[in-house]
Amino acid sequence: MEVWRVNVRSQSLSREELFQSWERLGGRGLLARIMVDEVIPTCNPLGPNNKLIFSPGLIVGHMLSSCDRISVGGKSPLTGGIKESNAGGRTGLHLTHLGIKALILEDEPENEGWRVLRLEGDSAHFESANDFDGLGVYAAAEMLLKRYGKKVAIALIGPGGVMGLASAGIQNIDKDRVPSRINARGGLGAVMGSKRIRAIIIDKSGGSKPDIVDHEAFKRAQAEFNQALMAQPQTTVYHDYGTAGMTLMCNGFGALPTRNFSSGEFEGAEKLSGEYMREILLNRAGESRTSHACMAGCTIQCSNIFGGEDGKRIVSPLEYETIGLMGANLGIESLDTIARMNWEVNDLGLDSIEVGAALGIAADAGLWSFGDGNKALALIDEIRIGTPLGRVLGNGAAVTGKVLGVSRVPVVKGQAMSAYDPRAIKGTGVTYATSPQGADHTAGLTIRAKVDHLNPKGQADLSRSAQINMAGYDTLGACSFAGFGFGAAPGTIRDLLNARYGWKVNGDVLQDLGRETLSLERLFNRKAGFTRADDRIPEWMTRESIAPHDAVFDVSDSDLDAVFDWD
Amino acid sequence: MEVWRVNVRSQSLSREELFQSWERLGGRGLLARIMVDEVIPTCNPLGPNNKLIFSPGLIVGHMLSSCDRISVGGKSPLTGGIKESNAGGRTGLHLTHLGIKALILEDEPENEGWRVLRLEGDSAHFESANDFDGLGVYAAAEMLLKRYGKKVAIALIGPGGVMGLASAGIQNIDKDRVPSRINARGGLGAVMGSKRIRAIIIDKSGGSKPDIVDHEAFKRAQAEFNQALMAQPQTTVYHDYGTAGMTLMCNGFGALPTRNFSSGEFEGAEKLSGEYMREILLNRAGESRTSHACMAGCTIQCSNIFGGEDGKRIVSPLEYETIGLMGANLGIESLDTIARMNWEVNDLGLDSIEVGAALGIAADAGLWSFGDGNKALALIDEIRIGTPLGRVLGNGAAVTGKVLGVSRVPVVKGQAMSAYDPRAIKGTGVTYATSPQGADHTAGLTIRAKVDHLNPKGQADLSRSAQINMAGYDTLGACSFAGFGFGAAPGTIRDLLNARYGWKVNGDVLQDLGRETLSLERLFNRKAGFTRADDRIPEWMTRESIAPHDAVFDVSDSDLDAVFDWD
Repeated sequence: MEVWRVNVRSQSLSREELFQSWERLGGRGLLARIMVDEVIPTCNPLGPNNKLIFSPGLIVGHMLSSCDRISVGGKSPLTGGIKESNAGGRTGLHLTHLGIKALILEDEPENEGWRVLRLEGDSAHFESANDFDGLGVYAAAEMLLKRYGKKVAIALIGPGGVMGLASAGIQNIDKDRVPSRINARGGLGAVMGSKRIRAIIIDKSGGSKPDIVDHEAFKRAQAEFNQALMAQPQTTVYHDYGTAGMTLMCNGFGALPTRNFSSGEFEGAEKLSGEYMREILLNRAGESRTSHACMAGCTIQCSNIFGGEDGKRIVSPLEYETIGLMGANLGIESLDTIARMNWEVNDLGLDSIEVGAALGIAADAGLWSFGDGNKALALIDEIRIGTPLGRVLGNGAAVTGKVLGVSRVPVVKGQAMSAYDPRAIKGTGVTYATSPQGADHTAGLTIRAKVDHLNPKGQADLSRSAQINMAGYDTLGACSFAGFGFGAAPGTIRDLLNARYGWKVNGDVLQDLGRETLSLERLFNRKAGFTRADDRIPEWMTRESIAPHDAVFDVSDSDLDAVFDWD
Repeated sequence: MEVWRVNVRSQSLSREELFQSWERLGGRGLLARIMVDEVIPTCNPLGPNNKLIFSPGLIVGHMLSSCDRISVGGKSPLTGGIKESNAGGRTGLHLTHLGIKALILEDEPENEGWRVLRLEGDSAHFESANDFDGLGVYAAAEMLLKRYGKKVAIALIGPGGVMGLASAGIQNIDKDRVPSRINARGGLGAVMGSKRIRAIIIDKSGGSKPDIVDHEAFKRAQAEFNQALMAQPQTTVYHDYGTAGMTLMCNGFGALPTRNFSSGEFEGAEKLSGEYMREILLNRAGESRTSHACMAGCTIQCSNIFGGEDGKRIVSPLEYETIGLMGANLGIESLDTIARMNWEVNDLGLDSIEVGAALGIAADAGLWSFGDGNKALALIDEIRIGTPLGRVLGNGAAVTGKVLGVSRVPVVKGQAMSAYDPRAIKGTGVTYATSPQGADHTAGLTIRAKVDHLNPKGQADLSRSAQINMAGYDTLGACSFAGFGFGAAPGTIRDLLNARYGWKVNGDVLQDLGRETLSLERLFNRKAGFTRADDRIPEWMTRESIAPHDAVFDVSDSDLDAVFDWD
C-alpha cells in the first residue's frame, strides 16, 4: 500500500512508500497521524496549508460486512480542530484496490477553475469540471457516471462545498451509484472546495484486492464475525427499521431534540418513528425499500429508500439523525416533508444535522415558525441561491446563533449536536463535550448502555469506553453497527488484522488503536489552541432544563477532564 | 470609594466597601481584577454570568488634562476573552463624584422590557426605557437630556446594542452633551443590551470630588504635568489636525489599510489627511471646529466638529481610525462621505473600526464595489433594519469573513485590526497578535518609535514596552495622549498617586500597574481557553505581501511568545 500525494497547484502526483509509523494505522487513526506529522495546526482550514486526506480503514477492501468505510479528514473549517468523517459507499473499497492507503490533497490552485481528479492504475489526472457549474450533487453524479462509466467510485462535493460553506460534506456513490453516503460533518466539503476539486473518480479497473497474508485464517475470522453479527438482535432491528428505530427510544428517554433543543419530548414522535416509516414504505408501491445496503457485502442493510405516495423515490436513505434534527427539532412531523428537505441538503452536499440545527436556531430567532415545512424548504433554497441568510445557515449552527443573536445554540467546538439531547443521555453529552471532533454521536454514543442516563455519575467512564471503541472502529473502517458483531466476537478483530497483515497483535488491539487515535487528535487540537475550556457542554444547557425529566447537564467539569485519563 | 453592585434581575443595588486588592487599582486594572475574581471565564458573554463593569481610572475625578477616562469591561462577545474599552466624556468624572470606584451590572432580567438605570446620591433606580424603541443614539440622548437635565452624565447603547451585535459599543456624552465618546471595541454594547439597560444616568449633584490627601503636592504635580504636556510638539499637532494627522504618516510608512488590507498605500490619502481636513473645516462656515475637547479640562483638544458645506455638523469627531477603516480600507476618498458613514454607525452605537473592516470584507466578497460610498451607506442601513446581511456585518469582521467565505480577514482573537497594517508597522502587529484584548492599536501603538518598522527584529521588545505603558495609562484613566506629558515628566504619575491617595509608590508605578493588569487579563483569557495559538497574526498576512514595501508579517512565533516575559 502507498500514499498518493496530489498537489493541486502543480497538478502532480507523488506516490510514496509508507512510513512505519503510518503503516500500522488506517482510517481515522492514520488521518490523525498524518495531521500531526504534516499539517500546521493553526493554519486556515480553507487555505493552502490545510490538507484533505482520504484514508480507508485497516480492514477495508475485502467486503467484510459493513467494514469498507472511507475516512476523510483535515482541519475543520467548522470546529477549527482536527476532523475525521467517515462514510459508506464505494470510495474506501476502490481506493484500497488501487493500493492507496492514504490520498492526500495538498496546497491550493492558482486559478479559479474547477477540476475532476481521476485516479486510475498508477496515475492521477486533472480534468475540467467547469461544466458542472450550478449542478447539484445528484445531477453532477449522473453526469460523472455518464462520462466515466458505472464501474468507478466517485466522491464529490455539491454547491455547498463550492460555496465554501462550513456545513458542506463530501458525497460518495453507494453500490447503486446514488451519491448519498456523505462524509457529512465538520465542513470537509468546503476543504475539498478550497482545493477546487469538484469530484474524485477512482477507477480500480487496473487494481486488485489488497493482499491477505493468511487467507484461511482471514476466512475463519470473517465467518465468525458474520455469524456473531447476524445473531445480534440489533442487526434485525436495523434491518427492519433502519436508524429511525431510534426515534421512539430517544423520545422515551426524553432526549429527542425538539424545537431547537427546548424539549426532549416531541408530541409527533410516533409519526417520526421507524415503525411508522416501515408501515408507510411497505404500503407504498414503487421504489420504496425498508432495507438497503450502502456497501456491497453489508448484511445489516440499515439504509432505506423513501418513496413518495406516487411510488417515486424522494430520498435514500432517510436516517434518524435527519429525522431528529429536521423533524422534531423543527417541530415538523411529516416524514415526507423531512425526506424532501433531506433530498435538498443532500443535493447541496450539506450535513443535515448542521443545517437542521441552524434552522432550529433561525426559528428561535423568529425567522420562521416551527412546523412550517414549506418555509423550511424555502430557507434551504436560500442556501442554494447563496443569499446572505442562506450563507449564514449553510455555515452552521454556531454562526447562525451568533449572527441572529440566539443564545440557545446546541454546539460543542462549533459543531452541532446530533439527535440525542445531552441533558437526558448524559454519557453522550460527555462525548459531545470532550470528543476532539466536536459534538458528534458517532464519536461515542452511550444510549444503549443499561444505566440511568439521567444520573451524572459514571457517565465519563461510559463515554471514555465508547469513545475509545469508536475511534478504534473508525480506524478499522468498520461501521459502528459492525461493532455489534465485533462486540460479541471480539477476538475476530485481532484475527482479521493478523491474518490480513501478518501482524501479531493481541486482543487489546481495538482499545490500543482507539486510544492512540484519540491521543493524536488531542495533540493536534492542543497545538491548534484547544484547552479544557473547549471540552464543555454549552453553559445554557447546565441551566435550562428540558421536559419531561426537568434535566440539565450536570456532569462535573472534573469528570469531563478525567475522560482521557491516559493522555 | 465604593463598589456599586447592581443586579438587573432583582433591580437592586448593593453598596460595598472595597477589598484591599481592589483599592490599589482602577480603570482597566481594576476591571481585570474583578473579572478574574468574579466572572466564570467560560460563560456566555451575553448570558447572566457575565458582568458589565464601569471603572474610572485611578486619577479620574480631578479634571487633570485628558485623565478622566472611563473604562468599561466584561467578557467580550466578539473575542470571547476579557475586554476593556475606555472612552472620554463625562461618565468617569461623574462616577467618581458619586464615590463609585466600580459599577458592576450583574445577572439578566426576567422580562423583555428595557430600562434606564439612574444613579444618584446613594441610590440606584430602574426606570422604563421602552419609549426609546427604535431610536438611534443621538435621538435617545436628546430625550434623556430632556428628561434628566443637562447636568447628568449619560452612558447609553444604540440599536446595535439592543440587537446584541458584537460590534456594539457604549456611548458617553461629552462636555457638550454629544453622545460620541464611545467604549467602542469588543461588543460591550451588546453586553449592556443583554442586561436590558438602555442607558445609565449618573447624577452627581449629591456628590463631590474625590478626596485628595495632600492638596499641595497634587497641585504641584498637576502643574508639572500640564507644563510637560503643553511643551510636547504632539500636543500642538493633535490640537491642530486631530488624530487624522496620522493619515499621511501611516500612508508614508506603507501601512494605511487600503481596500480590505490589500495594500498599504492609498492613492487618495492626501484627501483623507488631517492637513486637508483642517483646510476644509477652516474654510467651511458654521459649526465646524478643528479642535474640540471631549472632556472638561483637556488641553490637547484632539477632537473636532466636522461640518458639511452647508455649515451644519455632519459628525463630531471624525477620527483617524474611522478615516482609515471606512475611508482607505473601503477605497472611499471623500471625507464628507466618511463623516456621514461615521454618523450612521455612531447613531447605531457601533464600532466604526469593526464595521469598516466588515464592509471591506463584504467588498472583497463582491457584495459591493470599493469606493461606492452610497452603497456603503446602504449596507450600514441594512444593519439598522436588521436584515440577515445587516446582522452579519454588525457582528464584525470575523463573522462576516466566515459567512461570506472570504479568507482575507484582518482580525486577531476575532477583533478587527485598526488602521495600521501589521505588515508595515510590525511592532503594532506584535501588539495586535499578543494583546489580551485582540487586535487593537490602543493596546500598544509603536508607530512613533524611531525604528525601522519593517524589520521584524526588536519589535517584540517595542510592543512589550508599549503594551505595559498603555495598560498602565488605562489603569490611571489617562488618555494615551496624556502619555506625551507623562513621558516627559514621569515622576508626576508617582506624585499624583501619592498625593491623591496618601500612598508611597515609587517611580516604577506605571510599569507595575501595567504588568499587573496584563498578567490578570492573560490569566482570565487562559481560563477562558486562550493559548499561544491565539497570539498570532492571521496566517494570510504572513504570506500575502502589501505594496509599496512588499511586506509580510514575519515576526517569529518565538518573539511573539516572549512578549510577556515576566508572566
